[in-house]
Formats: sequence, C-alpha cells, structure tokens
Amino acid sequence: HAYSTKEESSARPIGRYPVPNKKDMPYDIVELMEEVEMKTGFLPNVFKAMSHRPAEFRAFFAYYNAIMNKDTGRLSKADKELIIVATSVVNRCTYCVVAHGALHRIYSKQPALADQVTVNWKLADLSDRELAMLEFALAVCKAENITEEHFQKLEAHGFDREDAWDIGMISAFFAMSNRIAHYIDLRPNKEFYTMGRVPQKKKEE
Amino acid sequence: HAYSTKEESSARPIGRYPVPNKKDMPYDIVELMEEVEMKTGFLPNVFKAMSHRPAEFRAFFAYYNAIMNKDTGRLSKADKELIIVATSVVNRCTYCVVAHGALHRIYSKQPALADQVTVNWKLADLSDRELAMLEFALAVCKAENITEEHFQKLEAHGFDREDAWDIGMISAFFAMSNRIAHYIDLRPNKEFYTMGRVPQKKKEE
Amino acid sequence: HAYSTKEESSARPIGRYPVPNKKDMPYDIVELMEEVEMKTGFLPNVFKAMSHRPAEFRAFFAYYNAIMNKDTGRLSKADKELIIVATSVVNRCTYCVVAHGALHRIYSKQPALADQVTVNWKLADLSDRELAMLEFALAVCKAENITEEHFQKLEAHGFDREDAWDIGMISAFFAMSNRIAHYIDLRPNKEFYTMGRVPQKKKEE
Amino acid sequence: HAYSTKEESSARPIGRYPVPNKKDMPYDIVELMEEVEMKTGFLPNVFKAMSHRPAEFRAFFAYYNAIMNKDTGRLSKADKELIIVATSVVNRCTYCVVAHGALHRIYSKQPALADQVTVNWKLADLSDRELAMLEFALAVCKAENITEEHFQKLEAHGFDREDAWDIGMISAFFAMSNRIAHYIDLRPNKEFYTMGRVPQKKKEE
Amino acid sequence: HAYSTKEESSARPIGRYPVPNKKDMPYDIVELMEEVEMKTGFLPNVFKAMSHRPAEFRAFFAYYNAIMNKDTGRLSKADKELIIVATSVVNRCTYCVVAHGALHRIYSKQPALADQVTVNWKLADLSDRELAMLEFALAVCKAENITEEHFQKLEAHGFDREDAWDIGMISAFFAMSNRIAHYIDLRPNKEFYTMGRVPQKKKEE
Amino acid sequence: HAYSTKEESSARPIGRYPVPNKKDMPYDIVELMEEVEMKTGFLPNVFKAMSHRPAEFRAFFAYYNAIMNKDTGRLSKADKELIIVATSVVNRCTYCVVAHGALHRIYSKQPALADQVTVNWKLADLSDRELAMLEFALAVCKAENITEEHFQKLEAHGFDREDAWDIGMISAFFAMSNRIAHYIDLRPNKEFYTMGRVPQKKKEE
Repeated sequence: HAYSTKEESSARPIGRYPVPNKKDMPYDIVELMEEVEMKTGFLPNVFKAMSHRPAEFRAFFAYYNAIMNKDTGRLSKADKELIIVATSVVNRCTYCVVAHGALHRIYSKQPALADQVTVNWKLADLSDRELAMLEFALAVCKAENITEEHFQKLEAHGFDREDAWDIGMISAFFAMSNRIAHYIDLRPNKEFYTMGRVPQKKKEE
Repeated sequence: HAYSTKEESSARPIGRYPVPNKKDMPYDIVELMEEVEMKTGFLPNVFKAMSHRPAEFRAFFAYYNAIMNKDTGRLSKADKELIIVATSVVNRCTYCVVAHGALHRIYSKQPALADQVTVNWKLADLSDRELAMLEFALAVCKAENITEEHFQKLEAHGFDREDAWDIGMISAFFAMSNRIAHYIDLRPNKEFYTMGRVPQKKKEE
Repeated sequence: HAYSTKEESSARPIGRYPVPNKKDMPYDIVELMEEVEMKTGFLPNVFKAMSHRPAEFRAFFAYYNAIMNKDTGRLSKADKELIIVATSVVNRCTYCVVAHGALHRIYSKQPALADQVTVNWKLADLSDRELAMLEFALAVCKAENITEEHFQKLEAHGFDREDAWDIGMISAFFAMSNRIAHYIDLRPNKEFYTMGRVPQKKKEE
Repeated sequence: HAYSTKEESSARPIGRYPVPNKKDMPYDIVELMEEVEMKTGFLPNVFKAMSHRPAEFRAFFAYYNAIMNKDTGRLSKADKELIIVATSVVNRCTYCVVAHGALHRIYSKQPALADQVTVNWKLADLSDRELAMLEFALAVCKAENITEEHFQKLEAHGFDREDAWDIGMISAFFAMSNRIAHYIDLRPNKEFYTMGRVPQKKKEE
Repeated sequence: HAYSTKEESSARPIGRYPVPNKKDMPYDIVELMEEVEMKTGFLPNVFKAMSHRPAEFRAFFAYYNAIMNKDTGRLSKADKELIIVATSVVNRCTYCVVAHGALHRIYSKQPALADQVTVNWKLADLSDRELAMLEFALAVCKAENITEEHFQKLEAHGFDREDAWDIGMISAFFAMSNRIAHYIDLRPNKEFYTMGRVPQKKKEE
Repeated sequence: HAYSTKEESSARPIGRYPVPNKKDMPYDIVELMEEVEMKTGFLPNVFKAMSHRPAEFRAFFAYYNAIMNKDTGRLSKADKELIIVATSVVNRCTYCVVAHGALHRIYSKQPALADQVTVNWKLADLSDRELAMLEFALAVCKAENITEEHFQKLEAHGFDREDAWDIGMISAFFAMSNRIAHYIDLRPNKEFYTMGRVPQKKKEE
C-alpha cells in the first residue's frame, strides 16, 4: 500500500513532486501519518507532499506542533484556524484556505464564518476581539512594520505581548507554508470542502 | 554573565521581547549559542531574540539547519545567502538583509554584490544563472503562482526540480523569518555592517 | 407579513437601508418576489434590499434578466455563475461570491470549484475554455484596456465576438452589483452557504 | 440614412461592434435616438453602440434614466456629472470622461473644473461639499468597504442616506458603463471636446 | 506693478510660496519674464512661482531651455509636449497637464489628442511612432529599469539612441517639475484651458 | 589620457552612452572634472556619463550646485545626503543609493545609517527630526499631493517653509537624477562601496 501522488487515477495529482511509497518512508514519518489519518479520518495531502524530504518533513511538523499545539496563551483552536484562513487568503493558497477553513468550521461550529473571511474579513460576522487578532495577523502576513501601536490595539482586546507573539508566529509560519504550497502545487483533499458545513453533533471535538 | 536585550547601555535594544539570562536558559540552547559565538566571533542577535521561546528556538534552528546546511544540491553557500538578501529586501527586513549580506560577502568574496542586490537586483552584476535563481526565489517570496514555466527557466540554467525545491524552501523559510523579525523588532549586530567589505585574506573560509 | 431588514431578531440586518413592508410594496415587485421565492425556496436578500427603491428595483432586475436569462450565445448557466464568482472575488463582495457560488454548485454539479475560484482562480480545476472565459471577464472587471488580442484568445476557445459581449456585459453588470452591495452592506442569506455542497439528485435542473 | 460605425469615412470607428442601419432598428430605439439628437444637436455614440443589442439598449437607458433624471434628492445635474467624471477617470474611460466632462461644463458653467478633476480631483477648485461627495463616490468606485464613517462624513456636508444611495448608485452604474465602453472600444463624438469651453449665454439650460 | 501671488483678488493663489514684487527681482529674471509674456500673451505661473528662488529660477529655466529648445534630434515641438502631458498625468500634476496640453494643441493643431492622452494614452488616436515614444517616456517616468529592449522598440520606429536620451531627459526633467509643482501647489493660468481648442489659423507657428 | 566608458577592460561599462575623450571635451567641463577628482580622490561616474551632452552637463551640475551647496537653511550636508539615499531607494537607483550612501557615511560619521535607510527607513536609527524630514521628502518623491498638514509636521520639528522647499527640491531633483541614471544605466564607482565604512579620523571634513 502506498500514498500515490494522484488521489484518484483520473484526477490531478496532489502536488508537483513525487510522493514515496509508504514502505520506503522512514518509520517515524509513517507513524505520524498513521496517527493523523486515524484522528482525521483521512491523511491531509500536506503530509504526503512533505514526505518527499524527510528531514524537512520532521522540521516542518515539529515547528507546526510547537506553535499550534502549545497549551499556553489565550488563542483558542478556532482562533488559530481563523488566523490561518485570513492570512492564507492574502497569499491565495487554496490548500491552506480550504483545509484550515474546514478545521475552523469544526472547532468554531460556525459553518459560514470561514467562507466570509475568505471573501472579505472586514465584513465577516466577527467579534471586535477577532477583528483585532486578524488585523495584527494580517499586518505580519503583509510584512508591514510592526509598531507599539499594533501591540496596544491587541492589548485593548485582552491580548498581551505573549499572545501577540503567538498570533505573529502563526501568521509567519503560514507565510512560509503558503509559499511551499505554491511551489509544490499542493492540492486540498476533497474531504475538506464539506467538513463542518452542516451544524450537527460532531465527534471531532 | 547574561545576554542583555541591549547591545550597549546607551543603545536601542536588540528586540522587543525580553532575552533570558544565560543561566536561566536550557542547556542545549546555551550550547548552540556558544558554538555559534565561537565560530562567528560574536552571537548574532537572532539567537538571543528566539531564546525567549525555547521550543520555538529549537524548531526554528532545526529547520534552518535542515535547509541551510544540507550537503546535497547545486546551491553554494553564497547562492543561499544571495537568495536570502534578495527576498528579505522585498519584505524590508533590516536584520536579514544586513546579516545575510555580510555572510554573502564572506562566502562570495564579492564585496559589492549584496549592496547592489539590496537596491536593484535586476541591475546587479549577476550571472544569468544567479538571475534565474533569484527570479524563482522572488516569485516564491511574493507568493506568486508557480507554474511549469518557472521550473523550465531554472532548468535552462542547470537547476533541476530538487534545486528548485531548495530555492523555494529557502525563500519560504525567510518569508517566515522576515515576518518574525518584524514583530520582534530584531536589530542587526553592528559587526555585520563591516564584515567582508575589504577584500583580504580571510580565515572564515 | 413583511420582509424585515433582520433575518432573525438576534442577527445583523440584511443591509443598511430599510426594507418596506410587503403590503407597502408595488404589486409588480411583490409578484416578482413571490415567483423567485417559490422557485428558490427562499427570497434572496438582494430582492429585499433593492425594494427600497422601486424604480431602481425594476431597472436592476430587468437588466439582470436581459443578460442572465437570454437564450442566445454559448455561455451555459454554470459559465455565467462562474464569471460572477471570479469577478466578485476581485471586488471582495461577500453577497455575490456566496450567492453565485451556490448557484454555480447547483448548475455545474461541481461542489468544490466555486470555492477554488474564490481563493485562486488560476489554480482551480478549470478547463482551458473556462480559464480563457475568466481571463476576459477579469480584464473587463479590472477596467483594463480591451484589445484585439483579448478577443483572439477567446476565439481560440470557441467564443465569438457576441460571446465576448456576453462575458463582458456580465462582468460589467456585476462590477455595478458588487459596488451596490458594498454601500448597502448586503448580507447573504444563510441558505446559500450550504446549497449544492453535497452531490445528489437535484430538482433545480 | 443610417448610423454608420464610422463617424467619417477616414476616421476610426466609434466602437468595435457593428451598428445597425436605422431602418433595421426597433421603433422605440429610433424614437429615443431622435429625441436625444434633437435635444443635444448630435447623437452621442453610446446610443449607436448599444443599439447592437436592443434588449440591453432598453435596460441600460431605462436604468440610466431612473438614476440620472429622478427629481428627488440633493444632487444637482452638475453634481451627478462631476461624480461621473471623477469615477470614470479611475477606470480610464475616455468616452465617459470626455462626454460627461462636457455635460459638467454645460450644467455648472465652470469651464475648467472637469479638466482639473480629470488630472487630480483632490487639488481641483471644489467646495468641501463637492469633495465629500467625490470621496464617497470614489470609495464606491474602487469597491472599498463602505462603513458608517463614510456616511457620517457625507452627513457633515448635508447629504443624508438617500443622497448617499444616489451618489453610490451613480458611481456603481458608471463602474458598469466604463467597463462596457472598454470592451466596445467606444469613442467620444468630436463635439464633446469643445462643448461648454467658452463661457457664454447658453441655450442648453 | 507686481506679480501678485493671487491671479485675481477673489481667487486661490497661484502657489503656496510668496512671489516677489517685480521691482525686487533680479534684472535677468524680469527680462526673461517679459520676453515670455510678450511671446505667449500672458506670463505662465511657473515663472512667477520659481522667482521665489532666483538661483533655482535660473538653473531650472536654463535646464528647460537646454532640452526643450535644442535644434538637434527627431522630436518635434508637438512630440515634446506630448511626452510632458503623458508623463505629468502619471504624477497627477494639474499645472503641467493643463499648460503643456495647451501647448500640444497649439503645436500639433490636433485639438482632442491631449485630452485623450490625459485619460488613457493607450487608447488615444496616436501613431505607432507616438505610442513607442510615450512607452519609453513612461518607463522612464515610472523609474522602471531601462533595458536594451526599450531602445530596440524605439529604433523600430526611427528613434536612435540620441533621440532616446532626449525622450528620457524630458521625462526625467518633468518628473522633477511635477514634484516641484506639488509642493509649491502651482496652479495653471486660466488661459491655458481654452488655448488651441478651436481649430483656426494661428499665429503661434 | 581619456575617461573611457569602461572602468577596467574586463568590467561592465559605467553607462550605456559613449564618454568622450578628455581632449575632445569643452574646457569648462574638464576643469570641473579635475576639481572634483582632486577633492574626492576619483571622478564619480556621473560626471563622465553626463559629459556626453555638454549643455546638459552644465545645466545639471549648475542646478545640483544651486541646491546642494547653498549656504542658507537648516539642512546639514548629512541631512541632504540622507534625503537622496531615502528617495533614491524608492526609485531603485543603484548609483545614487551607493554614491550618496557613501557621502552620508562621510558627513554623518554614522557608518550603519545609510544601509539601514536603504532597507527600511522607518526602522532606521533616526531622530524624530530626521524621520519628519524623510517623510516629507518621500511624499514629494512619490508625487503625492502636498498639503498644509505636511508643512505643519515639518514645522513641529523645526523646519520652516524655506527648509520645506529645500527638502522638496532635493527630492525632486533626484527624482530626475534617478531616472537619468536608469536610461543611461549609470554604474557606481567601486570606491563608493567602502567609503566611510570604518569609523576613523577623516580628512574629508
């Protein structure tokens, strides 16, 4: 059994680089993949695509884990996904907007918000706190100079400087991820498009 | 002895976040810092600034190491620094342009090239191979859609798809680094400004 | 019974201008609304919002009808909705992207395409014919000078000059609609977000 | 007698699409054209160009009439033409800037103002009221998000929310017209260039 | 008798800086002004505004004279004015567009061309030679990198490298003039708006 | 002895246009060149390049002299060079950034500041007075409308309207120079790159 570069025989491949056969992958990578597949129900294509470079696979997901799964700070899981959606829109990264839009729907239980943010974040049905969070994240995303005023706006909505670091780091990390997705031509799994659309009792939580 | 957040008592701090005292840092981080300081002659401020978050320090430099110090591929050390300078200019990241401009002068022994690339890369005294490499790196840096045509241009100058990945990954990683430097307000060490300016017999090689 | 300006008591209003009570509306407007509501299953908010100005309501929907429901030309219903989605993204019009994305899913039976076009049309799973159609529509949308070269590119994909007019006119009409939606602050009905997501036997055809 | 697509045998045609012979046009269109020609002294090319599509001709001029010739609201005829000039400049629409610049000169009796607005509206000899009106019109023209602050600025100069709708609708309608003019390659009648240049007793009023 | 800073008592001043009384001006400046006034019929405001700084007045008009009144090269007087109009539009310089648009009408005897170029130079009724000339002038105006390809395009329309220098220098000089006009807030004389509008036997030639 | 167009036989020429032999140059131009060469230790390439057109050489350096070597006003020599560096970066002019960065290091004795301004002027170690000066200079450089508010910001840092003229004129003059450098393809002398890098007792003062 192998992770082919084509999702189905007739479809566009998941990316531009070859994906190794599972049996040729290092054991730690297979292990991580199986864990993710178990939890999510399918293996997101970013795992397959990055396995082309095992050392970079490890570095990428270790970094991802350090910032997305840390316990400290005021950012909820839904907050983090919202930052990813809003900043990935700026870079027009189909994979990240579609995949993390799905995760946002799951975590927030708000089925329309990620779609709204994808078109026009300023007009989305967001709280002032969420707007302030995205304003900071987008300033980092656009490589703007970050001034004391930026931090003060966050503080007015209850985010301290450690939260600002978290917001900035997620935005910066996905500035990298979006660009990797571009040169890899990474395609979203079809499952993401429909995840969390219909409000219902979910086991993902 | 501690790494203070101010380089000198009278000067602007090296960044916006506090830098822990050396004695409060995890041992592996101190060890890495001392190794770098030994080799470079001083400790670049990015190490001090990132030590504010040990887990992210480890993830950041492990990733950096995986892409900058790998042995495979056709990119020389000078090539990699050139990519960092050219892309960091787009994001107006003073730290990365100044620090990696210095490293480029050291590795390339060309004292004027990084300064030229900083102002106008298209008019710099670059080979066609270097221009093609930067064109790809800048397309990734600007989050442009990367097409087969981009890869073919690289191939015309001897870069295969694995080299393209390396160029793209360095560009993507510094898209992240530049943005981190912005929200940290990371300042270059003063040593970088003069490194490699005067062509002379160097021990760095 | 009246079309209130709030979809639900607790929710953000559908727009910034008051919507008249149904009993105060001119008969022809009520008649059109009831016909649309019957067909669609709900009354899209654009009908409510425009009823604030009966003369402009009539002009707007007469124009819409003249270009969207004409029988001539090579544009399918799905083609027309795709043009609306792609151009409304440029203007960040939440209403038009969400509503016409839904209609595209219904007409095309492709549940992921509108979402892809919303993030990055050039990377969406489109045919060359669809890409050429959107390229022309977007040039008109961005008010670019339209040259003979634009028409020739369309002709290479089977669109003659009358089709070009149709593409251009839909793009131009929604350049207007997107801007009206902005100053009205028109909000999409919640039904649009989930329409056509799950591929199934549909009676809309 | 026919409306040819060339103004004079030697000149560039008025547009890219064929204009039917008068005898082949529907009677209501001929009637409208003759009425306009009587009033203006010549037939503006937009009437000729749009007659290529009779249904769209009717929709376009019905809409135009509903917003330009309505009796209500605080916008004078000169105000409306000023909005059209300022927004059509953004879209670089030669026909609309030249034709409506002429109409502005006629209605306002200010022979230099439209030329000033064409180059740099912010520096033109406009009243604060006119500047506020154009600021709103241009925000709509550029498809910016329209916020409560936009409406409040208008209110400070005596424009209520119904006037805001009027300003926004004219701006939106010409966002459409400018784009139609681009794909049709619509050329201004030569009469427009000199209309209203010399201040004199005019019968147009 | 003095050149006041206001054209008429009721009007906006011609600029932001005080204009000295004629009797306080150096003799060579008065002499040049009187010569220009004799020839043109009125004194263009740029002469008044620049007299605030006699040394810079002399430098500015000496430079202007060296490039605008030289006898060599293939650029006609109308060509030079066309370059000024097209580049001054980019910088939104009301004075230069209005004043040199007038001079273009006088020299070219084409009353509509400057107005067309002001709105959209690419769609103006220009020869291929004029389009090539403006394309080069605008590349210089926008501070683009100028490559061999730019010179070759000019050569294809009969302009050699010395003509390219002339086009480039006029574009560069007015890049300066436009910016001076901005900080001075230089206003056009009202005479410019109507000059050369009506085709007639002219004595200016 | 002649000023060749190549600095060294193997190198890229200093510009695109031929430089005359010294013996064929007008005497006043040779005299000025020799004076500059004596003072600077080498002849900056802009003198060689402009000698291709003696009349324009004289006009250019007379203008330069009138604004750069005037005794009045509050701008120091270092201030003027800082303006040139910051504005020339916007136009990506390698010659002006490199040459005037060197002059700034000499005059200011601050070896790192010009490099910082080249990457990101807002984050450079500048005083509030210098930031205000550059903000005005850059507004002129970008051909923005200059309002009373611009002048008031300068006044808050001790610059009166005559100083504003000086800042604006230097910015405007180098808007011209940068563009000339582009079409000439003017290259910096290699001496500029290292001038003033090492803080030491200098005789330039």
